[in-house]
Amino acid sequence: MASSSAQARLQAIHSHLSIRPCFHRHTIHNDTSTGPADLTRERANASFEIADMTEIILRGKENVVAQSLAFQMIQRDPELRMHQGHNYDLTRDEDREQTLRQVVRTIQLRNLNFETRFNNAMVHAMAFYSEAFWMMFVHDLLFKQTFEFLGTSQQQDKWMGDIKRWRVLGCFAMTELGHSSNLPGLETTSTFDRTTDEFVIHSPTLTSTKWWIGMAGRTATHSVAVCRTLIDGNDYGVNWFIVPLRDRKTGRLFPGVVCGDVGQKASRQGLDTGYIQFTHVRIPRENMLQRWASFTPQGVFRPSPNQAVSYAPLISERFATLRSNLVTLSQSLTIAVRYGAVRRQGAHDEQILDYQTHQTMLMPGVAFIYLLNIVEREVCKKWEQVKEFAQTDAKQFLLELPEQHCVAASFKATMSWYVTEVLESCRRSCGGHAYSAYNAIPGLIGDFGVVTVGGGDNVVLMQQSARFLISALRKAQAGQEVKGSVDYMNDYDRVPLITKTSFQDPRDLLSHELVIDTLKWVSLKKTIELQEILSNAGADFDTIWNAHQTELVRVADIHAWRHFLIIYQCGIQPEKTRKPEAYAMLKKMGQLMSTFVLKRHLDLLLEEGYFDGLHAKLVKQLFLDQCKDLRKDAVALMDAWAIPDFVLKAPIGKYDGDIYPAYFAAVNAAQKSFEPSEYWLKYAAPLVNAPQPTQVEVALTTTLPPVSLDDRKTDKGQERQETWKYESDRRLGMSLSQTED
Amino acid sequence: MASSSAQARLQAIHSHLSIRPCFHRHTIHNDTSTGPADLTRERANASFEIADMTEIILRGKENVVAQSLAFQMIQRDPELRMHQGHNYDLTRDEDREQTLRQVVRTIQLRNLNFETRFNNAMVHAMAFYSEAFWMMFVHDLLFKQTFEFLGTSQQQDKWMGDIKRWRVLGCFAMTELGHSSNLPGLETTSTFDRTTDEFVIHSPTLTSTKWWIGMAGRTATHSVAVCRTLIDGNDYGVNWFIVPLRDRKTGRLFPGVVCGDVGQKASRQGLDTGYIQFTHVRIPRENMLQRWASFTPQGVFRPSPNQAVSYAPLISERFATLRSNLVTLSQSLTIAVRYGAVRRQGAHDEQILDYQTHQTMLMPGVAFIYLLNIVEREVCKKWEQVKEFAQTDAKQFLLELPEQHCVAASFKATMSWYVTEVLESCRRSCGGHAYSAYNAIPGLIGDFGVVTVGGGDNVVLMQQSARFLISALRKAQAGQEVKGSVDYMNDYDRVPLITKTSFQDPRDLLSHELVIDTLKWVSLKKTIELQEILSNAGADFDTIWNAHQTELVRVADIHAWRHFLIIYQCGIQPEKTRKPEAYAMLKKMGQLMSTFVLKRHLDLLLEEGYFDGLHAKLVKQLFLDQCKDLRKDAVALMDAWAIPDFVLKAPIGKYDGDIYPAYFAAVNAAQKSFEPSEYWLKYAAPLVNAPQPTQVEVALTTTLPPVSLDDRKTDKGQERQETWKYESDRRLGMSLSQTED
Repeated sequence: MASSSAQARLQAIHSHLSIRPCFHRHTIHNDTSTGPADLTRERANASFEIADMTEIILRGKENVVAQSLAFQMIQRDPELRMHQGHNYDLTRDEDREQTLRQVVRTIQLRNLNFETRFNNAMVHAMAFYSEAFWMMFVHDLLFKQTFEFLGTSQQQDKWMGDIKRWRVLGCFAMTELGHSSNLPGLETTSTFDRTTDEFVIHSPTLTSTKWWIGMAGRTATHSVAVCRTLIDGNDYGVNWFIVPLRDRKTGRLFPGVVCGDVGQKASRQGLDTGYIQFTHVRIPRENMLQRWASFTPQGVFRPSPNQAVSYAPLISERFATLRSNLVTLSQSLTIAVRYGAVRRQGAHDEQILDYQTHQTMLMPGVAFIYLLNIVEREVCKKWEQVKEFAQTDAKQFLLELPEQHCVAASFKATMSWYVTEVLESCRRSCGGHAYSAYNAIPGLIGDFGVVTVGGGDNVVLMQQSARFLISALRKAQAGQEVKGSVDYMNDYDRVPLITKTSFQDPRDLLSHELVIDTLKWVSLKKTIELQEILSNAGADFDTIWNAHQTELVRVADIHAWRHFLIIYQCGIQPEKTRKPEAYAMLKKMGQLMSTFVLKRHLDLLLEEGYFDGLHAKLVKQLFLDQCKDLRKDAVALMDAWAIPDFVLKAPIGKYDGDIYPAYFAAVNAAQKSFEPSEYWLKYAAPLVNAPQPTQVEVALTTTLPPVSLDDRKTDKGQERQETWKYESDRRLGMSLSQTED
Repeated sequence: MASSSAQARLQAIHSHLSIRPCFHRHTIHNDTSTGPADLTRERANASFEIADMTEIILRGKENVVAQSLAFQMIQRDPELRMHQGHNYDLTRDEDREQTLRQVVRTIQLRNLNFETRFNNAMVHAMAFYSEAFWMMFVHDLLFKQTFEFLGTSQQQDKWMGDIKRWRVLGCFAMTELGHSSNLPGLETTSTFDRTTDEFVIHSPTLTSTKWWIGMAGRTATHSVAVCRTLIDGNDYGVNWFIVPLRDRKTGRLFPGVVCGDVGQKASRQGLDTGYIQFTHVRIPRENMLQRWASFTPQGVFRPSPNQAVSYAPLISERFATLRSNLVTLSQSLTIAVRYGAVRRQGAHDEQILDYQTHQTMLMPGVAFIYLLNIVEREVCKKWEQVKEFAQTDAKQFLLELPEQHCVAASFKATMSWYVTEVLESCRRSCGGHAYSAYNAIPGLIGDFGVVTVGGGDNVVLMQQSARFLISALRKAQAGQEVKGSVDYMNDYDRVPLITKTSFQDPRDLLSHELVIDTLKWVSLKKTIELQEILSNAGADFDTIWNAHQTELVRVADIHAWRHFLIIYQCGIQPEKTRKPEAYAMLKKMGQLMSTFVLKRHLDLLLEEGYFDGLHAKLVKQLFLDQCKDLRKDAVALMDAWAIPDFVLKAPIGKYDGDIYPAYFAAVNAAQKSFEPSEYWLKYAAPLVNAPQPTQVEVALTTTLPPVSLDDRKTDKGQERQETWKYESDRRLGMSLSQTED
């Protein structure tokens, strides 16, 4: 060959040995170089001070400092930090151990008498860091508040010291295997034994087993259990009882108490959800919580004046879901928004956050968490005031309870449904990379699903809310002024006189009052319609209710969002003078959510003729414009939540945007070996190295039995099902019914 | 005490020792007694023969028999069956091993030359049994079809024997870390070396790493890799190359090839998804697949006449998602519907399936899988015909490709989005019990999410479909008749003359023609509008396209569902005479889906004035009525899918409805011990046994540093971010960039 081919050969060898890339005219697009620059540019273009927004989110400078210190503590402390940097590759037991270790360490810290502000910041920071950490609220909120609502002052004196210092570990035994939403149908019994002055707690059936009880599986030493109360042959409905579960010194279950582990869940494996069966467990009479239901000194039982009071801890739980919504969404949106700014695709290598569909997927969520943060502050403040009444003014407490129940129930339901949608949008926005556990989103989604059914099934809660609306309307129609979130029912006779909206200019849609009035109109119209139908139902009430269940849930949804927008509008006013730039953003986000809510109900508004086609198109176009506009500040808006990288635990959501090396590193860190696995050698090697086939070595039938038409003549499906109803798998379907009643 | 109290005492002792339940007036409601009776009654009331429906679903008697035998084989064979009865508690390695074992065993069975029908039934049955089993389609579909579409007959002769018998294990290396949707932007290079007649395959950057490659992590011995082809300094776009990965005898990676494991995913841990980096790997020229792009005998390279042909295997993949939709949904709906019939709650202990919201959540899904089953059959039949042309008539193949691409892309996208909704509905319908991994639904959901972004991101696919619609309209407007799914574009001048629907009677909505015409009207109207806007866009085309991206996706969605309903209507006609009762049900389900589709687009129909408020209300009411009506047959309709209990692996979905003992048994089977865990003794015991606090033993600061306002004066956020930008976690963020370019 000529010297040119020798040269070519040399070149080839050089290329082969060199680690430099082959020549190609196509520009190497390497995202590791554009990601950081993209995020820097986004931040530089923010239209507000990120630090100001962080102060608003965390509710003051002092909290910002406390939160920083808390995150610093967590990142350093060897018992608080996750040893692998994340929990995605842990076994269930390892996850449980890590979570318990973190919870105990947090409590030990708290017991050392730091400032309340720092203690709160620690718990808040840990909740961001670890989804399973929320188990501590089983004790700190559900268990503790049961005593606060339902215990006498003597009972509180006796127990609260230990509860606050976690010298008991409590769980909340309410749900049963066979009963979740229908609490009056609970089966666990508590029977009073006058001769020994004891209550006997018993799970009479398999379906009465307490089920989905957080911390019960391996951890809790005590429970508060809600039981059907039987005294002198009378059924007094449900009351709460303190039932010890385990010996505090040894951790062993007490006789008559079985606590088991519910096992693998969709996610949140770090929390030991469990079941409890009581078999004639005896507790002293004073273990019944007796603020509302009680015994006279003569031993006469006085039942609770209001069964609703037994469920007061649930109101707290439902308001608490608003906080967990924020923790979950602020993380998933931080990841998705940053990734959207860093990831480039398309014919022009554009940032995917520039796609309209990306904006409509993510921007409403970004706005939503800002609104929810303000609203959560306000509704929790109100609920704290009402809770006080439980200690000081029982009458006032009972008066306020229905509205609080309605707000908690409808917000819990409506918001958790919406959060589920936003989470799915975050997942899709991250493309395939959200399929990786190492990018946090699968775990966040897996965890969250249960919120739509736990703490009260959402559909049930929305119906309770609808009932409240209808009852408020009835009161108003009877001439009684109604207050609170339902105050607009007072206008039941005036509002329906309006038949159509008056707005023409799209800028009118930016008016808070116009949006609120529109939602008021449609909510009132629907409530009036439904109330009329139901009031004529007579004995068929339940059937008629069910035939309109979808509409009832919908009107409750509209009402909840309207109330949500109103609370937000009030809640942001103080920032108008304090932080005008940030306030402008907050207002903008409120407007986006308002348009979003209108858009959701356009079909109704069009159907009822309140809007015409032109109005609907204006709403839709405004929504697209607002999403596009908010995109400009999206990265800064998520930065303001100030969630450190080590907490996000998602390489594609890193603060600096240099995502691919980090992602690759996380994946590599999880790889134990590059050697061929033993099971490859055992199963794949023989297959790929099989000799060419010569003869069939195993004599198996190669024809199938003929099909006879006679096989089919029978009752509907009776015989045919035999074909596929196989011998039960001995592991599944193993019945323990012989040991149950 | 008097004798009555002695008697009371005796009674108490008797109660204490007895295992009989305490007396209470409340009727013990024990679902274990009502569940089986409920399901029996539901089945007895079915309005069709379940066996007939099974034949329709499985497409013939012979398939029903083959399927039965296949399930029997799986349940018995120790290498096919899951050793724990399910895979929910396996570690990732255990899951991988089990899956590989199952795949290999299935192939070994197939290699023994059973009937094709039985072989197909085995694969089908295994796919129901194990979500991870789908990994075999990486080889059997993606890898194999790449040869069938893109290989010469000599290349096929050389490789197909081994591929069919799995003497090579193939994977499909397309997606890269930095490029998924934008395939023209792929970075992996294949550079032709004339001196050695080899191609040199190279991953020049970290982002060029092949990523999300099923079976690549631990298993595949070979890959087909799509690479940017560089020959004599020219970039010829993408082509496919056969690149060996591992030594077949030892399983060891070849030098220059790194295959790593992508690690923990949202679900489907049994499939070893991996990444691949090629470092100057040399392959012979004949490893380039050369049916379309090839070298002349003189060594001149002729690129492919049509880049689209390189993506033909993706069309197969997208049609295959329709089958996986069915496998996933038929299982989750079987579980949810049976549970809905067995679970009783509410004031009257009603079956939850009687709730309207339950019906609207589940009934459309039940109908949908029946429609999808027929439609999948039809579109796959058509695609098989077109695939043949790839071998026999290249010109015809290229002609048919665009329509096939549009149908595959839009159906994959539209249907997977809808499946995600139905899965979420199934989850919510099962309440808390769907949070348990042992009830299958969490795994089904975790698996499925990736389908909306993998195989082509749905939003990207829908835009491709929209482009096809617009291009068909343009052709029609230019006087060229268009055929296939877009044939209605030919009416572009007549249809817009109609401004409003003519129906008044709700029964008109049961007419297939009316629904199809309505969808035609709105699809055509929107396409014409968008086409006009885009044709005036000029140089701003991309910006204008993006500004209408949401609408474009929507019109593609309407078009897809319309086409779907049309295919179904044709597809069920043969059953009219063959099985009239079953046909009546199929027709009913088609009507329900038709109403459902109209309902989804009511806002558009109202906006455009084609429907008025009354029409909309009729559609909504009809939908509620149809869901209620279908509920009566829901259990039977799901029974007809004939999925055995051992395959469902969900106690709450058991055929016999005796769910609670089985559920409890599954949970107990997973419990390793009831002893207090070591970590309880280590962490919890010290906490609960801590002495009452006397003094703070550890000297830690209890005050926080004062906040200085001066800290904040700076560039936007520049300094403040320091507070929470912590030292990088050394495990995350570890950069390998020193070893990369």
